[in-house]
Amino acid sequence: MTDTAAPDTRTVVVVGGAGAVGTMLVDQWRGDGATVEVVDAASGDDVTCPDTVVMELLRRADVVVLAVPEDVALTAVGAVRATMKPEAVLVETLSVKSRFAAAVAGDAEPVIGVNPMFAPSLDMRGRAVAVVVHHGGPAADVVLADLARWGARVQVTTADRHDRVCAALQALTHAAVLAFGWALTDLGVDPDEAAALATPPFATMSALLARVTGGTPEVYRDVQLANPYASAARDALVRAVSRVSDAAVGDIDDFAALLARARVPLGDRADDYAALCARLFEDTVR
Amino acid sequence: MTDTAAPDTRTVVVVGGAGAVGTMLVDQWRGDGATVEVVDAASGDDVTCPDTVVMELLRRADVVVLAVPEDVALTAVGAVRATMKPEAVLVETLSVKSRFAAAVAGDAEPVIGVNPMFAPSLDMRGRAVAVVVHHGGPAADVVLADLARWGARVQVTTADRHDRVCAALQALTHAAVLAFGWALTDLGVDPDEAAALATPPFATMSALLARVTGGTPEVYRDVQLANPYASAARDALVRAVSRVSDAAVGDIDDFAALLARARVPLGDRADDYAALCARLFEDTVR
Repeated sequence: MTDTAAPDTRTVVVVGGAGAVGTMLVDQWRGDGATVEVVDAASGDDVTCPDTVVMELLRRADVVVLAVPEDVALTAVGAVRATMKPEAVLVETLSVKSRFAAAVAGDAEPVIGVNPMFAPSLDMRGRAVAVVVHHGGPAADVVLADLARWGARVQVTTADRHDRVCAALQALTHAAVLAFGWALTDLGVDPDEAAALATPPFATMSALLARVTGGTPEVYRDVQLANPYASAARDALVRAVSRVSDAAVGDIDDFAALLARARVPLGDRADDYAALCARLFEDTVR
Repeated sequence: MTDTAAPDTRTVVVVGGAGAVGTMLVDQWRGDGATVEVVDAASGDDVTCPDTVVMELLRRADVVVLAVPEDVALTAVGAVRATMKPEAVLVETLSVKSRFAAAVAGDAEPVIGVNPMFAPSLDMRGRAVAVVVHHGGPAADVVLADLARWGARVQVTTADRHDRVCAALQALTHAAVLAFGWALTDLGVDPDEAAALATPPFATMSALLARVTGGTPEVYRDVQLANPYASAARDALVRAVSRVSDAAVGDIDDFAALLARARVPLGDRADDYAALCARLFEDTVR
């Protein structure tokens, strides 16, 4: 029904609706014509101890979103789900799914997790949203259809796979970029001298460094701390840097083996990524 | 005189003119109308033991380019420079400058080093070319003017500064990218699963990984081995990864300090790099 231009008749309650992810979802559903109510700690609301107004909103909602930190979500989920209509869907937006999955393992009503794999300031169209269906149902299916209609690439996975892959995609990537920056600092590289001679790969790494170091420390720390698999990803990077350093001073066969081994995770997408790199390098020209 | 549309009347001999950098220079000067002669090992020429034909070319040339490996350049430079007209300019294209600088330290005739800071397959316009003026002169100035006219950003530095900065720009950057790939391999990340959930930073790192691992092993090994400062750059990365790993599990002040320290090498260019990152991320959308 939401595939048509008819106004969305659902009532959506977004807890944490004043935050970055919450705001993105509020704007999308309001754009569809849905009735969207925002409950946010910034306005004095406490979903872990809801007042009668919030309780009434939760009772009437067709969709309730918990766009809140993990500790708040874990504390609130039992009472929130119990207050909601059985056929309504609860949506969490956590960046780590496995602990929440364990918390709702005994439930039967619709609960899904979504995780936009991009900064909420970026446009959703064409970008990946990871989805974990804790418990399915028609109302859950409609939310997945909403995401697809908004242009997201909906990628359904399990809570454990989500957390394992996110550790590699996020914790590992950020750690590699930050280590690059720290090493540059240690080497005493002058910003102007480096910029004057910047190669396309260096400029690209510096762009990533500017992004990660310019972000909110709490957000980037959460990526490293909250995910149960993040420490394994950092340990893998520590080992990898030493191996690369060893292989770099070996013979040409060692070096060719290094390149081949580092290329494995690209699989049959290596050519696509190489084509992407060529486009990125065009952007590095001033 | 080369700033006008008048045809270039110089004779240019490009030793190694069938290689990647050599070909790029051959094409540029031919486009200007200069007489360009190619001397290349692929055609049986040996500049370290030149035959009478090559000797005559070197005698008549206004510009001689040594676009050859470092060992060949170091062996050939004495005899080549002695054979050339005193006012003609010798141009080397080595990626490491300090050993060549030592070899020509006693000379008085014009010798310059150029190092395109980009793959020769990329367009020169807007990209940096590092220049070391071993010994200046009018013919050297004309070659620098050629580079500028072709659109390169000519960056003059010393041999030692060139090698220090290039170790940070190239050896460090490649090592960080390769370590990222090796760690992904160790973590057993599935290429399709990673691509499905790829964040913009992960996609960007994967693009760099495809580029570096898809290149010629000899070229990337040379970056790690030939530069006398490359091992210090790799050592700095090894230390940095451990420090990042430690800071990642510290408190929020530790993490904020990590971000601040890693940002130092961006200097007052951090905002420009952040803007570049925003453009790059647009390219990662499929």
